Amino acid sequence: MTLFVDMDEVIADTYWAHIELYNQEFGEQLTLEECYGKEVWQCVPQERQESVRKHATRNGFFSMLKPIEGSQQILEQLVKHYDLYIASAAMQYPNSLKEKSDWLDDFFPFINWKNRILCGDKHILKGDILIDDRSYNLKNFNGRSLLFTSPHNVHSNGFERVNSWHEVAGKLI
Amino acid sequence: MTLFVDMDEVIADTYWAHIELYNQEFGEQLTLEECYGKEVWQCVPQERQESVRKHATRNGFFSMLKPIEGSQQILEQLVKHYDLYIASAAMQYPNSLKEKSDWLDDFFPFINWKNRILCGDKHILKGDILIDDRSYNLKNFNGRSLLFTSPHNVHSNGFERVNSWHEVAGKLI
Repeated sequence: MTLFVDMDEVIADTYWAHIELYNQEFGEQLTLEECYGKEVWQCVPQERQESVRKHATRNGFFSMLKPIEGSQQILEQLVKHYDLYIASAAMQYPNSLKEKSDWLDDFFPFINWKNRILCGDKHILKGDILIDDRSYNLKNFNGRSLLFTSPHNVHSNGFERVNSWHEVAGKLI
Repeated sequence: MTLFVDMDEVIADTYWAHIELYNQEFGEQLTLEECYGKEVWQCVPQERQESVRKHATRNGFFSMLKPIEGSQQILEQLVKHYDLYIASAAMQYPNSLKEKSDWLDDFFPFINWKNRILCGDKHILKGDILIDDRSYNLKNFNGRSLLFTSPHNVHSNGFERVNSWHEVAGKLI
């Protein structure tokens, strides 16, 4: 069985990083709870939105990310049961490509380079299961689609939802 | 129809670059013709093979590549007829990732970032046609497989072969 796992907001905590950077730069105390159901840039005053939207273009942004809780332990188990690939829509940010590869080396060294995919559009993936936080990625996938809960997607419906890596383990192992 | 096109040896001339670098560094005059049917590293004395095999790990190697003859003109036509993706097995060389993205911007600016895939193993691709110079990529593909002629594969059999981009155009447009 082939299992695809997204990076941002599934194994890498970009949401936290956006809030952290915003608070540092503007001296604010924006919290995760205030952002539920929205993208982080949608939770800040209009004149600051462009700054937040450009975080991902900065050198070092993807290097600073923390792994999502449980992702390392559970993926290390899942690779024993599945032909597991990391699949990240990264091509929009050329500076992110090496950072993402290095980040996987650091936090997920047990995922071989052969099992890493950096792409633009995920509807070219052929496999059995996709775990992703974006419904536009899941809706074009032919196999079983699991929506991984992220603050921005808490109001999304229509997909089998997993709220944590421990829930993923319960379903897939 | 979804069409995948490989990079190295299909639109980017790595073979020429290996020979060029080897000749520069060792003061030799190795020719393309001498290498037919082999990898470039297999055509040099044993004590120099490791040097050639490491070309791809150097910064700048993928930036120096010339486009394969006809690839720019024909791909610019093909993108009008197909959902065309560049698919390169690049993850083994993290330094190549941004170079490959930049190279596509330079020589194939009409191929959107959404239509670029850097991966490890190509058997995860879902589509109709794959043009590649490696039979191990083609044999796992479910659709129509076209073997693009490169000096190293002139003796390979078992796949529909295309010797040039003009031949590709004759078959696909």
